[in-house]
Order: sequence, then structure tokens, then C-alpha cells
Amino acid sequence: MSSTFGEKIKISVFGESHGQGIGVVIDGLPAGEVIDLDAVLGQMARRAPGRDKTATPRKENDLPEILSGILGDTLTGAPLCAVIKNTNTRSQDYGDLLYKPRPAHSDYTAYVKYNAANDIRGGGHFSGRITAPLVFAGAVCRQLLERKGIRIAAHIKQIGKAKDKSFDPVRVDTALMERLSASSFALIDEGAEEAMRAEAEEARLARDSVGGVIECAVTGLPAGIGEPMFDGAEGVIAKAVFGVPAVKGIEFGAGFKLAEMRGSEANDPFRFKDGRVVTETNNCGGILGGITDGMPLIFRAAIKPTPSISLPQKTVDLQTGENTTLEIHGRHDPCIVPRAVPVIEAVTAIALLDLM
Amino acid sequence: MSSTFGEKIKISVFGESHGQGIGVVIDGLPAGEVIDLDAVLGQMARRAPGRDKTATPRKENDLPEILSGILGDTLTGAPLCAVIKNTNTRSQDYGDLLYKPRPAHSDYTAYVKYNAANDIRGGGHFSGRITAPLVFAGAVCRQLLERKGIRIAAHIKQIGKAKDKSFDPVRVDTALMERLSASSFALIDEGAEEAMRAEAEEARLARDSVGGVIECAVTGLPAGIGEPMFDGAEGVIAKAVFGVPAVKGIEFGAGFKLAEMRGSEANDPFRFKDGRVVTETNNCGGILGGITDGMPLIFRAAIKPTPSISLPQKTVDLQTGENTTLEIHGRHDPCIVPRAVPVIEAVTAIALLDLM
Amino acid sequence: MSSTFGEKIKISVFGESHGQGIGVVIDGLPAGEVIDLDAVLGQMARRAPGRDKTATPRKENDLPEILSGILGDTLTGAPLCAVIKNTNTRSQDYGDLLYKPRPAHSDYTAYVKYNAANDIRGGGHFSGRITAPLVFAGAVCRQLLERKGIRIAAHIKQIGKAKDKSFDPVRVDTALMERLSASSFALIDEGAEEAMRAEAEEARLARDSVGGVIECAVTGLPAGIGEPMFDGAEGVIAKAVFGVPAVKGIEFGAGFKLAEMRGSEANDPFRFKDGRVVTETNNCGGILGGITDGMPLIFRAAIKPTPSISLPQKTVDLQTGENTTLEIHGRHDPCIVPRAVPVIEAVTAIALLDLM
Amino acid sequence: MSSTFGEKIKISVFGESHGQGIGVVIDGLPAGEVIDLDAVLGQMARRAPGRDKTATPRKENDLPEILSGILGDTLTGAPLCAVIKNTNTRSQDYGDLLYKPRPAHSDYTAYVKYNAANDIRGGGHFSGRITAPLVFAGAVCRQLLERKGIRIAAHIKQIGKAKDKSFDPVRVDTALMERLSASSFALIDEGAEEAMRAEAEEARLARDSVGGVIECAVTGLPAGIGEPMFDGAEGVIAKAVFGVPAVKGIEFGAGFKLAEMRGSEANDPFRFKDGRVVTETNNCGGILGGITDGMPLIFRAAIKPTPSISLPQKTVDLQTGENTTLEIHGRHDPCIVPRAVPVIEAVTAIALLDLM
Repeated sequence: MSSTFGEKIKISVFGESHGQGIGVVIDGLPAGEVIDLDAVLGQMARRAPGRDKTATPRKENDLPEILSGILGDTLTGAPLCAVIKNTNTRSQDYGDLLYKPRPAHSDYTAYVKYNAANDIRGGGHFSGRITAPLVFAGAVCRQLLERKGIRIAAHIKQIGKAKDKSFDPVRVDTALMERLSASSFALIDEGAEEAMRAEAEEARLARDSVGGVIECAVTGLPAGIGEPMFDGAEGVIAKAVFGVPAVKGIEFGAGFKLAEMRGSEANDPFRFKDGRVVTETNNCGGILGGITDGMPLIFRAAIKPTPSISLPQKTVDLQTGENTTLEIHGRHDPCIVPRAVPVIEAVTAIALLDLM
Repeated sequence: MSSTFGEKIKISVFGESHGQGIGVVIDGLPAGEVIDLDAVLGQMARRAPGRDKTATPRKENDLPEILSGILGDTLTGAPLCAVIKNTNTRSQDYGDLLYKPRPAHSDYTAYVKYNAANDIRGGGHFSGRITAPLVFAGAVCRQLLERKGIRIAAHIKQIGKAKDKSFDPVRVDTALMERLSASSFALIDEGAEEAMRAEAEEARLARDSVGGVIECAVTGLPAGIGEPMFDGAEGVIAKAVFGVPAVKGIEFGAGFKLAEMRGSEANDPFRFKDGRVVTETNNCGGILGGITDGMPLIFRAAIKPTPSISLPQKTVDLQTGENTTLEIHGRHDPCIVPRAVPVIEAVTAIALLDLM
Repeated sequence: MSSTFGEKIKISVFGESHGQGIGVVIDGLPAGEVIDLDAVLGQMARRAPGRDKTATPRKENDLPEILSGILGDTLTGAPLCAVIKNTNTRSQDYGDLLYKPRPAHSDYTAYVKYNAANDIRGGGHFSGRITAPLVFAGAVCRQLLERKGIRIAAHIKQIGKAKDKSFDPVRVDTALMERLSASSFALIDEGAEEAMRAEAEEARLARDSVGGVIECAVTGLPAGIGEPMFDGAEGVIAKAVFGVPAVKGIEFGAGFKLAEMRGSEANDPFRFKDGRVVTETNNCGGILGGITDGMPLIFRAAIKPTPSISLPQKTVDLQTGENTTLEIHGRHDPCIVPRAVPVIEAVTAIALLDLM
Repeated sequence: MSSTFGEKIKISVFGESHGQGIGVVIDGLPAGEVIDLDAVLGQMARRAPGRDKTATPRKENDLPEILSGILGDTLTGAPLCAVIKNTNTRSQDYGDLLYKPRPAHSDYTAYVKYNAANDIRGGGHFSGRITAPLVFAGAVCRQLLERKGIRIAAHIKQIGKAKDKSFDPVRVDTALMERLSASSFALIDEGAEEAMRAEAEEARLARDSVGGVIECAVTGLPAGIGEPMFDGAEGVIAKAVFGVPAVKGIEFGAGFKLAEMRGSEANDPFRFKDGRVVTETNNCGGILGGITDGMPLIFRAAIKPTPSISLPQKTVDLQTGENTTLEIHGRHDPCIVPRAVPVIEAVTAIALLDLM
């Protein structure tokens, strides 16, 4: 199927960028838990465009309306549905996109898959806007995880050539995580901000865009979460993270660096520490055999440059069958990486709640 | 759940390294299709240990017995079950492993998850041996895909510091794919073999192991395969590939390199070629919005070094609660990357058949 | 999980009787199909209370708002979400129901399951009102089936002791099916209406309610739909039909009458007729081995009497731990069977589309 | 899909009557639980043909071989696979059945569905023999349930016109349940045996067969099991029970009798008894709103007469396109109802474990 995730927690996302509304149904939430809606809105604000100077100029009213599943501030156990109405839609911008697919967008593949019946306006169901309900769902799941001592935080590891420090893989500081989870430009080393903004600004001035990497850490996970083989923690998290538009890679722990490593270097030695089993290093990213080992779970996701750029681009005209050039006017967000940080956190929360 | 994959094609893998047998049930195969069992056995031979000089000395009899689902050589439409009996088991090798978990193995996490009731012998259900039925299942699925013109081939992209060439992302040669799919040490540039074997041999002499990268290409896929969001082609393939032990990362197309790229560079321009829509470059790896675009689907998987090494390693004694040292005698496969190539191809075939 | 149905078509129902709104997300619909929304509203009207004189006096505004998945009148392929806002809510009616569970309602079981956090007002997520989005979803699915020549119709087989004729199991007339599918009191023999209304009216005057049986037929199904064992047509339809509140039994073809029959009588002989394989009788209800045989698919569902009655009833006080008596004032629908007819048709349509 | 059941516990059944073997994979069983294999074999013996004088003369060796998932007698947490090899196969009996479908069998529908590639010998994957691994799986699940105080027992409610007493719906005696679960001709009132055997014997002498009803009770279930709507206890159990060949109907509690009842009669009054909430009657069969209420869960399943009879029957010749007559020589089991009792218990156990 498609916009549905999970076995224990079932998330069903709906909506198109310029349709009547977007939203999410979350089935399987535990009855009786109190949800802090202000905290949920806080997470959604981190994703919303127009808040940060690096972001898109288009402003959206992302206020979710909760239709069901919460009575007062308490989960009822019935499916939770939240809807965000679309207001600021300018369909006229997207006139001939149905036949002139934007490179690196889903325009062409959706055209083929849906026999040209897909809602192309604003990318339709493939729009980045559809990540708003994901952040809503993730913010609810995150609160349930936090009550079990499980904390999630991500940061901008890289934009273009500018890089942030990495998480200390064996000890991720809680105060740092709290700071990251409240930030709209989340960095471990805040000194990296200037270089990153420069990368984005240079891209913007060049009517271009730039990609990046997001690193995410989860602490407080008990050992023993995840299943062998296909429902291992890596696989379930990867499936969730690839659900975020623009993600093209994921690596856990030392990831692709493991290719050059010897076993004696890569194998994380077990030690007792304060009566608990820990590992001295964490090249496995907190997962062995698909199952958490109680150390921080750490992964990185590669984010491709925003496909929307103002430079002229080569494309095809599906009506005439001829090669052509496309130029999209209007301002574009030159770098979505900062806004993708809360989305990555959100899908991680959803995946973990489903794993537990 | 765990050892189960798929919605349209359901794969259920069972078995423990030193139990009575291992195998797989494949549900949802189309009735009436003829299966070439010799070709299936050929794929299984590529994975089997002891065939290649870089591989483990332990020989296995991997001959599968088909219990159901095939009459003569034709699929009946009922679930196909294949069983491989375990014969060459030496349980005595694994005496105290239950309490002295091998670093980077699943020993500790399985101990916690299964309350010490898991079959630790040979890694039990987490053994690399369990990939034999995966290759069986993948080889069956691959034949069904080939009849639709869909071809899968992978090669050893890297072992340690030694690297092979990459696939040409816009044109993957069929003859090359056929050569790779028949090889037990699959390389695009066969000149890379010497350096790679040297990496493995050095590791072996050092009683150590070494990791690598496998690159996989799929050609002949029509545009339009995959769903938006969570059942996108990347997510489904990633879930299958992370089901292979030792995989710690996956990237599609240009993958993590996209982080440094500009949109104008990363966006693959559309062009008409011989009446078909193609892209001039293939940084997206053949997938846009989770949906195939008709170009070669290309990904790379990071393989960690074999955890089993002969060097002494630090670990814990879960019975005494003390730190200790573990030394595992016997010969170990210093590099499983060559044998993992057919496994990666197999799970890719399973994932694609499920997506279609 | 719970309020989710289907593998190929995924239906996710949300909402509580007195919450902000109820609705449904339908994932997996084919892009490009035109939906006749007036026909959908027509089906919803058949279910809505207050239309028929036998029905509840509470009027609802069941007008669905479509948030996504339809552009103009055409399915886009993205998830379709329809929402019905709740307006006519009178929460004060349900003051102490949380602690005084109504007999035969879900009040007590939901109280236990959801730790008393469930929205008890109007039955919450268990309200019959939640069947409105089911009818919406079923009406969409039905149109897709009709384009393949598959027609669904149900009728009131029984209310109390008053009975309608049964479908001719080997030939269900299309004109009859069209008449039934447009009726709010669907009967094969319209002469049965008076006795049925008398049963309902007598129950109403006695401040009581009465149950019934609904019979459903599907024509135009090709042979070969359904899977062996657990995803057989009977099992999938049964799971959908038991999703309708108040259903307590289902039987296919001759159903429970088969217990007294001999094989020679029950076995439906095969014959060629106009070049097609048919059966002379249809005791199997159009399903053999879980797979349709091309004859009309026929089943009956037992509907328990509406639990809501005005007579005083014995119950418990969960707060005090004492036995007590409950008397629910206000008018109640003495017989929901007529309004349940379109709901049974709707879930049948959903189940069949999922099976195909 | 098909021969797969469950979300928490995943059961995958494979095999064809005259193939190499049949079996089952059970994924999701809890590690560390001890399984009494003798008790499992005892349940399988109840289903096996040739034990009871009413049964088929064909003897089978149903001894299961456990390939994985159990070490000693303890569940390892990995998937449990059990295989039963086929030995006593006489393929020559089934020569032209592929083209002359037996009435009321799956021969014709499987022929259409599987394009004539299905293994028709002995009914292939649709054979009653395939219920042997179901009983194996159910017997394992049953032991896990019993440790939670949950007990399952079924009896022959009816064969032809001969009837047994019914369970007392509010109090099902444990000693009675133990007696039933050990019996190969399970009756509450053992005085009913003679009349039932007479029904079967009369059918046999007439070269015919006869149907029946099985009633099943579950005690010890806590209140709160099951989900609203589609994963309610009724729906999940129904899907499992319709997975048993020959089942054509299911009703819970008073079932179809509820059609004639008034609400005041059908509604089960709540009462406190020994500090627990109970109901005075149990017309709902222990399920309200899809969720268990803590009373005995009771249902009945309609079993159609064995389709295999020796009388000549009308059928078609799919090769010649002509009507013809079929006469199947050899002895047939005139009544499978007694042997279906442990199968119904087994699938109930599987369904309940999946619900919990």
C-alpha cells in the first residue's frame, strides 16, 4: 500500500498540497495518556515554512484540528485524527506542470503511476507539506516514548560542505538533546551555523539549492527492541525514514565507514559499567542483529538538494513528446535540511513506538 | 513480527544454525510458472561457504528439499516450502557463548530479548546460514522478474580500501549483469580482484576480518513501481536489505554524495530518447517520490566486517557479572562480502516482486 | 489493530459519536476513476437516521467533506479522506454512563479495555454513527465494482418473526438488486413490510427493541476470487461484516441448514450453460474452498436487537461496586435492521474490492 | 494473501495432500516457554483419520518433525517450523479430477484460480489433510493460553438431525472441558453418541455423507480482549474458523436466534458476583463491541456434509466442454464433524493468542 505505516501503531497519512486538507489517523495509541498539545504544536512549528530565514517564503497555517481520539487532553484509545486545512493555495502557479515534469520531483513518476490523474498542484500527495501531519503524529508518539525515558534528537550534520560535529556515540547528553529538539536550526556546535547558512545563501543567490545530512540519536532505549531479519530496528527505522521526501540514504553507527574497518576495530567491546552491560565504542549504532543493545541508537540520513530551483532545467513535454526547458519562477527554499530535522525525529518516534 | 517479509509475496524464513533444519515458505507465487531449479541451485552455490578460497572452511550441504508448491517444475500457486537439513553441526564449539556474548554479534541482544532461551549455537536464528533460504526464495523471485525483462546484478564495490568501478548509472550492460550474476567473486573490473583478496588475506593473517560495500543494479523496471511515502521503492528495498545480517547502511543513486551537491547538479534532466522518457544522469538511482522512473535502480549497501575474529576480544560474563576476554578458536571467514552479493540480489528480487 | 481493514484497499475509520467529527481514509483506490458523489450521498442517506419512520428521531447532518484523494470528480490515487463533522451532540444525556454500563453495549468492555479513558458519550468510537463513514467508503468501492459488472444488494430477511422471501440463489435479478439498493426499507417481497413494521412498532410501544436478519447477494463476480484458508472469501467478508456493530452471526449459502443435509443434497452439481460453468443449486453460496465459483455470492447476517431500550435494566455501578438499575429516557430506534442494510452492503463492497 | 494468519502470532501453513510434505511456520511465539509435545501429539491424534470408527479408512502418519524454534522442549523465540512428511499417497486415484471437478470441492475454483496448474491430487493445498499442521499450531498456542488460565473446548453439537446439549453459557465446567478436549467424539451428553453415529452410518450405507454443527467455548478470558470494528473478537475468530475447510457459518452467543428476540430479552444484565462483574445471561457470547466481557466466549460453526461421496454426481468435463457424471470409488468418511472438533479448537487458540 502506500501512505500507511506500522503494525502496532498504524499511521495513515492523507492529503494533497492544494486539496482541501491534509492530515493523519493514528490507530493503536494507548488510552488514558495525557498529550501536551502545546508541545505537539511546538514540534510542528519547527517544520513549518516561513519561520526561519533560510526557509521558503510561503507561509502556511499548520494548525491541526483534532477530530477524534482525544477527550480533553487525554487519549481515548480510539483512532486519533488530526486535520490541517489548506488555505494559502495558489493553483495557478502550477499550470503546465502535469505535462512538463520538474526534474528530481515525483511529477513524472506520479504521472505514469496514476495515469495523469494525480493532483499535480504543489506536488499533490508528494508535497513536502504532507510532512506536517507526520510531525504531528511523531510528536504524539514522542511524548509516549519520553514517559518511558526514551529521548530522540536530531541535528543538521551537514549542509553542502559545511559540517557540524557528530554525536558522541556512547554518551549523548540529555541537555544537548533538549536544546536540539527545541531548535529550528539544530546544531551540536552552534559555531557551524554561519558556514551552513552561507551554503544555503550561496545556493539561493545562484537560483539553486543544496543538500545535506541529518544525524539522529535515540537514548534510553532498553536492550531487546527489534526483531531478527526483516523487522529489525534498522529495517523498520529505514522504512520510516525513507518515507520522508528527499531522503536517499541511511546508515547506522559507523555506517559506510565500516567498509574500510577491520573487525577488531569495528566490534564494540562489551563491558560492565555500574552493573549494566555497555559497549566501549558504538560502531553498531546501538543495534546488533536488528535488536537494540541499550546503547544510543544513532543513524544518519542523506537529504538530496531541494529539487525546486529557479534555474532553467531540461525536461520533456509529455503532451508534444518533445524535449523542452522548464523555468519555475517564484522564490524557493534553497535548503530544506533544517526543516527536515523535526520530520526525521518524528518518523523515528513513530517507528520506535511501533517496534516496542 | 520478525522473519516475515512482504504483502503480495509473503516470505517466512525459519531455522537455527544448529537446529534440525532451516528453510522458507513463500506464499503468493503465481501458479503455472515454470521454475528452473538448476538456476536456483546455482544462486545458492554462490552463497555457500567453502566454494571460494576467501570463504569459510566449514562446508555445508545446502541442498534444498522442496516440500510443496511445485509439481514437476511448475508452481502450483500453493505456498512453496523449501527445507535445508542441517548436517555438519559442531555444537561443542559454542559452549559458553550463551554467557560470554561475542562482540558485534547478536548474542547479547538475543540473550536479553529471548530471556536466555534462544538457541545460541552458531548464532541460532541470527546465523549467516539463515541467508541460504533467502537466496533460495530470491532465486525463485528473480526468475519471475526476468520473464518481465527485469534483471538484477550486484558486485563487490569495495573490500577494505580496495575498490571496484561503479555501474554506469544510466546504462547497465546486460552481458555484464549476466557475468556478475554467475560469479562467486563478482566484479565489474576484474582487475580489482587481486587487491580485494589481499585485503581479505591480510585480515585473515591478522586473525581479523574486513568489511566492504556491495552495489546492486536493477534494469528493465517499468516506470511507476512503488508507492508514495512508506511503501516507496527505497523503503521497501531498504527493509529487505537490512534483513541481511551485517548490513549497516544503504544509499540510492548518488546517496550521501547528494549532501554536497547543488540541485542543478543533482536533478536528473528528463529527455526523450527513442520515444521513451529517460534521464540524462541518474543521481536519484531510478526512484523519484518512491516510484521507479524507468532508469536503472541502483543502490549500495555497507557491510560491516565479519564479527567473528580469532583475536582475543573484551566482553562480559553474564553469569558472573564480570568483565572478561573471549578468544574464539578455529578458522573464520575473514570477509563475507563476496558471499553476501547473491544474498543482496536475492532480497532485492523479493522486495521488487512484492512491490510489483 | 482495530479500525483498519484490508491489504490491497486499506480503510481506516476514525471518530467518536460526540467528538469533533468522524470519517474515513481509503488508501489504495485506483487513480483516474470517476466517482459519482451523488450516488455516494444516496447510499449514506439510506443509513442516516430520521429518514424512515421506523428510525431514531435524532437527526444527523451526515454530509461528508472530502479532504483529499479526489480532484473534481476523479480519484487521484492518493488516499481519499472524508470527514463528517458532528453537530447535533447532546452530551448531557450520557452523564453517568461511564460508571453504569448499558447492558449489551460496549460501555463495560470499553471501560475495561481503555482504563475508563474512552469517550463514553453516545458510545464513542463504538457508536452506530461510526457506520456513516463505512457507508461512504463502501459506496465508493461499490462504484468501482459495478464498472466490472459486480453488483451488491441486501434486503431485510427478517425482523422479529416477520420474514421476507429469500434471494433465488442461482439467479438474482438485476432489476430487483437495483430496487433494493435504492430502498430505505429493502424487501424482496414488499408485502412483508407491514408485518415487519408491526414488529418494530410493537417493540417501540413496549419501550423495547427487536432484532433481525439481513441477506446479501453479490452478482457478476468472476470465478477465482479469494484465497485458500484464512483469506478465503468467507473469512474476509465475515471479518468485514462483524465490523458492523450488532452483527452476531454470518452464514454463506445454505449455512446452518447444511448441518442437516446429506452431501448428495448439499453438493451443487456443475453444469455447462451457454458455454459457462454454473451450478444447478447454490448451497455453497458461490464459494468453494474460499474461492468464488462465478455463481451469486449469498450470505446472511444476524443482527441483535438494538441494545438501547427505554425499559429499566439491571446493571452495575462501577464506582460504588453495587448492583443497580438503569433507565434511559428519550426515544430509541426500536429496530436498526433497515438502516443496517446499506452498511452490510458497504462492508461487503470493501471486502470484495480488497479480495480482487 | 492466503495461507497466512495473524499479526502478533503469524501462522504460515504449507503443503499439498500428495506433495512431499505439509507443515506450518509459527512466528512470534514467546521464548522460554516449555512445550509439552506429547500433549501436542495428543491433539493431532484427535484429528487424524482412522482412529475413530466413523472416520476415513485411509491412515496417515501425522508425526510432525520440528525443524526449528524449540531447543529441548523450550521455545527459543525463533520461528517454529513443523513438517509432516507425506507417505501414504495414492496419486493414481485422482487421475481425471483435474478436468472433472468434484461438486462442492475446490477442484473447479482452484482450476480457474491457478490456471489448471494446481496440484489436484487429493485436493492439493485444499485437502482436509492440511488441517493437521493447523492442529499442531493450535495445540502449541493452546498451551500458552492455558498458562494464563484460558481454556478452550468444543463438542459435536449436531450431526444430521441428532443433537447434543449446549454449553451452559454462563458457566462452562472445567472438568467437562477437559473431558471434551481429550475425546475423539466430543459430546456434552454422551447419550447423544448413538443417534449421531446412526446418522453417519446411514449416510455411509447410502454412499452419502452428512453435515453438522460444532460448538466451542472459551473460559478464563479476561475482559478487554479484542478491538473495535474490524479486529473485534468475532471478526478475528470468524476469519480463523472460516479457514477450516467445510465451515459455512458461524454465530456467537445466541447468534441467529437474536433475530427473533426483543432487546429486553437479549440484553445480558450486568451483576456483581464475588466482586467481579458478570452477566446473568450470555446471549452476546462473551463479546460486546468486539471486546471480551470476561464471560465464557461461545460460538457455533456450521459444517457442510463432506463433499466426497460415492454416489454418482453430475459435473462437467472441462476438457470436452460437456456435461458428464462422476463416480468416485473407494470408501469415504461419511462425517468429518468429529475430526473437525480439534481443528476448530486449534484455530480458536491461534486467533485468541493473536488477539491478546
